[in-house]
Amino acid sequence: MDEVPGSLGTTASLSLRLGQTIFSSASLLFMSLGVEFYSYTAFCYLVTIMGLIIPWSFTLALVDGYSILVRCPLRQPGILLIIVIGDWVLSVLTLAAACSTASVVDLLLHADGSYCPPKFCSRYQISSAMAFLSWFLSLASCLFNLWLLPSL
Amino acid sequence: MDEVPGSLGTTASLSLRLGQTIFSSASLLFMSLGVEFYSYTAFCYLVTIMGLIIPWSFTLALVDGYSILVRCPLRQPGILLIIVIGDWVLSVLTLAAACSTASVVDLLLHADGSYCPPKFCSRYQISSAMAFLSWFLSLASCLFNLWLLPSL
Repeated sequence: MDEVPGSLGTTASLSLRLGQTIFSSASLLFMSLGVEFYSYTAFCYLVTIMGLIIPWSFTLALVDGYSILVRCPLRQPGILLIIVIGDWVLSVLTLAAACSTASVVDLLLHADGSYCPPKFCSRYQISSAMAFLSWFLSLASCLFNLWLLPSL
Repeated sequence: MDEVPGSLGTTASLSLRLGQTIFSSASLLFMSLGVEFYSYTAFCYLVTIMGLIIPWSFTLALVDGYSILVRCPLRQPGILLIIVIGDWVLSVLTLAAACSTASVVDLLLHADGSYCPPKFCSRYQISSAMAFLSWFLSLASCLFNLWLLPSL
């Protein structure tokens, strides 16, 4: 069977999943270690979505690692379809969360300075950037698996 | 050739395109007839994206109408691929704009009331809702055309 780089069970896929896990965790940590995140709806939403995407990516990273170890990639159309749909839904949600956070941070920065101590604001910005990176990797996983799907 | 409902050159596609044009125009009007939209980055971004999606959807609505009239659907893989990619990029941008606008409006509503006169805020909300509807229709067009693509 021809191997699509980045599809389920390859080392490229494993690195994509690990990247998603790392960026999502970084986004979650930068956001939730700041004290005031629960007073803004957009920040709560980001924390919720990151809490969804971390176990999803981590589980799939484990599946990839197992497939690489036993040299027997998991190639069932049903499972792959579920993974593609899950990746797609999560990437849409992540994009929404990242955009909301970025626009709220931008508004807080350009309103009068009382809302946003500089230390918090830069952490919010880093968190939003990490969420964008996580979206990008999640979309890449979705597209690679979608590419593989018709050939099964 | 089997007809995919909603793909290029069908009446369903024409109605999807008209819906996109109407919702985008409504979003643009509700936002830009309010006076203060240019003082927020997210609102300027929404206006820019709506200004991109209106001519795109309107042109494709004309193409659909012409295809229906002459009963000769346009079925070239290259053109269809360009349309799918364009739809996809525009739907991502629309989603980003809608989310940014919604989160900024939410923040303005729940900050102290001095920022947002009630009349303006409800218009911003309607504008954001219209942008979400436009995103949904744009995504539907993209998926229907993507579905048709491998059969050409």
